[in-house]
Amino acid sequence: MQQPSTTDAPWMLRALELAANGPEADPNPRVGCVLVGPDGTLVAEGWHRGAGTPHAEAAALAAAGERARGCTAYVTLEPCHHTGRTEPCSHALAAAGITRVMYAVPDPNASAAGGAAWLAEQGVSTEGGVLRTASEALNRTWLHLKRTGRPWVTWKLATTLDGRSAAADGTSQWITGPEARADVHEQRARCGAILIGTGTALNDNPRLTVRLPDGSLHERQPLRVVMGQRDLPSDARLFDDAAETLHLRTRSPREVLTALAAREIHHVWLEGGPTVAAAFMADGLVDEIVAYVAPVLLGRGRPSVSDLGITTIADALRLDPTDTRVVGHDIRITATLQETL
Amino acid sequence: MQQPSTTDAPWMLRALELAANGPEADPNPRVGCVLVGPDGTLVAEGWHRGAGTPHAEAAALAAAGERARGCTAYVTLEPCHHTGRTEPCSHALAAAGITRVMYAVPDPNASAAGGAAWLAEQGVSTEGGVLRTASEALNRTWLHLKRTGRPWVTWKLATTLDGRSAAADGTSQWITGPEARADVHEQRARCGAILIGTGTALNDNPRLTVRLPDGSLHERQPLRVVMGQRDLPSDARLFDDAAETLHLRTRSPREVLTALAAREIHHVWLEGGPTVAAAFMADGLVDEIVAYVAPVLLGRGRPSVSDLGITTIADALRLDPTDTRVVGHDIRITATLQETL
Repeated sequence: MQQPSTTDAPWMLRALELAANGPEADPNPRVGCVLVGPDGTLVAEGWHRGAGTPHAEAAALAAAGERARGCTAYVTLEPCHHTGRTEPCSHALAAAGITRVMYAVPDPNASAAGGAAWLAEQGVSTEGGVLRTASEALNRTWLHLKRTGRPWVTWKLATTLDGRSAAADGTSQWITGPEARADVHEQRARCGAILIGTGTALNDNPRLTVRLPDGSLHERQPLRVVMGQRDLPSDARLFDDAAETLHLRTRSPREVLTALAAREIHHVWLEGGPTVAAAFMADGLVDEIVAYVAPVLLGRGRPSVSDLGITTIADALRLDPTDTRVVGHDIRITATLQETL
Repeated sequence: MQQPSTTDAPWMLRALELAANGPEADPNPRVGCVLVGPDGTLVAEGWHRGAGTPHAEAAALAAAGERARGCTAYVTLEPCHHTGRTEPCSHALAAAGITRVMYAVPDPNASAAGGAAWLAEQGVSTEGGVLRTASEALNRTWLHLKRTGRPWVTWKLATTLDGRSAAADGTSQWITGPEARADVHEQRARCGAILIGTGTALNDNPRLTVRLPDGSLHERQPLRVVMGQRDLPSDARLFDDAAETLHLRTRSPREVLTALAAREIHHVWLEGGPTVAAAFMADGLVDEIVAYVAPVLLGRGRPSVSDLGITTIADALRLDPTDTRVVGHDIRITATLQETL
C-alpha cells in the first residue's frame, strides 16, 4: 500500500472526515471530496448525503464553481465512471478543469477502464491508495457487498458470563441492562436490515424497530426480515407500519443474502434465534460478532450459542476482537471472524 | 462517613501511598504513617514492610526521633493497642509526644478500649474515618478476615465467549492466551493461598506455583491447598519443594476457610474445578469473581460454571463489576457478588 506524502495526507484526512457525515446505512457509499488550489489552499469541500443526492465530487465542484480550474481533488473513493442518475464524476472533474485526482480506494464497481484510468487518458494526473485503510474502514460493509456480492453480516449475541441466553425455565428478561439494550438500538440503526427466523418471530412477537431511549421511533428504520417456511400471523407486531417487513420463505442463508444484496443492503444485523445463527455460522456467512456479556451467572439454562459441529479445541472458532467496552453493567465485545476460518 | 478537612486529606493520601508499598499477601495489613510538625511541614514517614518488621507508626517515630514531639500522626489504620512482638503503637505514639492522631479505619481487632480510645484518655486528640473508603480498599481482604473470621475468596474462571471451559472431547489448551495466563500468575502472587479440589489435582497434576513470564519462580509463593477426601500420589507436582502444600481432607468450604484463617491467610485464590467452585457458591462463600473471557466459540463442550440450583431469571446471580480490561486477546472481568445475595 502506498504511503501518502506529507502534503497529501492531511487533505485526504479532511475528505475522510467529510465522508463520515454521510448516512451509514444508505445503499450508497460514504464519500468525501476536497478541492485544493494550485497555491495549496482549500477551495471547496463536499460529501455524499445519500442515494438521490449529488456525489461528493459534484457537491465540491458546485461549491467551487470556476475556482475548480487547476485544482487537485482529494476523493475517498475512486470517481465513478458510469452514467447513472447523474453524470459520471470522471467527466465532471475533467470538464471543470481539475488537473490532479488523489483517491483512497479503487472503485470496486469499476471494469478495466474505471474513472481513474479514463481521467489519466484525459491528461489528469491520478493516484490511488492514499489513506486507503482508513477509507476502507469507513465503507467496510459496502465494499464487502461490492466485492463478494453479499452483505456484511453482524451477529448480535447476548449472553451471561457463563454462556446462557435464558434460565432453565426459559425466562430471559432481562439478562443485559437498559444501557446495553439502548446500545442495540443504536447499532440496529446503522444497518440496512434486521434479520430473525420465524421461530423468534412466533415465540417473541418482536417489533424489530429502532427506538430511542424514550421509546419513540428512530427517524431511520432498517428493513425487518424474517426467514423461514412457517406462516406468520397477519397481526404480528412485525407487520405494523413502523417499518417495512420482508418474509423470505427459505431456510438458506445464501438465498436470504442474495435477496438482500438485490435490494442494495450491505449490512445485515442478525439477531437470531440460535437456529438461524447456527445456519449462518455453518455456511461461513457471519463476518462479525457483537456480543453483550452480562455479569450474571445462571449455572444452567439455554446455551447462548448452538452446536457448531466443533468437538475439539483445535477447531474452536477464534475471533479477532476489534473493540471492547463497558456498556452500563455489561461488556460489549465486537470481533471479526479470523480469516483462516 | 466523615469528610476529611482540606489540610488533613493530602497527608492521609500520602500515608495511603506509603501503605501501598507494603506486601499485599502478608498476614499483616498494609499501613502507612506520616508525622507532620506543628508548623504543618513533613517530619517523617514510615510504612509496614510485613510480619516481623516494625509497624508503620514505629518506623515513622524512629525516623523522626526527638522531632516527633508535638507532631500530628496520620495513620491509615487505628494504632494497635495490644502487646505482641512489639510495644503497642498507642504507647509509642504517646511516649514520643504526638499530640494528635488522625486515622482512616478503626482497628477491627480492637475491643471496646482500642488504641484511639486509650490515646484520647492520655489527652491526645484523635479522629477516625479520614479517607476511610480508600484505606478500606487497600486492606479489603485483611479487613474481611478480621470482620468475618474467614478469608476473602476470589474465584478465577476462564471461559469461552459462549461459556465453555473445554471442548466436547475435553481438550482445553489453550482457551485463553499467553497474556491472560501470565496475568493469572500475577494475581496468584497477591494471594495467601491457591485452592483446588482433589479432582483437579489428580486430573491435571498442576504445579500451582507462581511463575514469571520466563518460566522462573516468583520470589513469593502462596500456600498450595488441595481440598477433598481422595489420596494424592506422593510424586504429584504439588508436592515439589517450590512452595508449601496443604491437603485438607474435607469437602466443606467452611472447614477449609477456618483452617486457612487459623494460618492468618486473608485472600484465597480459588481455581476450581467446577465441583469445588459450585460448593463455595452454594455456601455463599465466594466474595469475588475474576473471569477471563476468551473471544472463542465452541458451541458445545464442558460448561464453565456448574449447576448453581438456579432455574429462573429472577434468581440469577448478578455480579457487580469493579474492573474490566483487555488482557492480550482476552477480556478480564473482575466482579464482586452483590450484597443482596
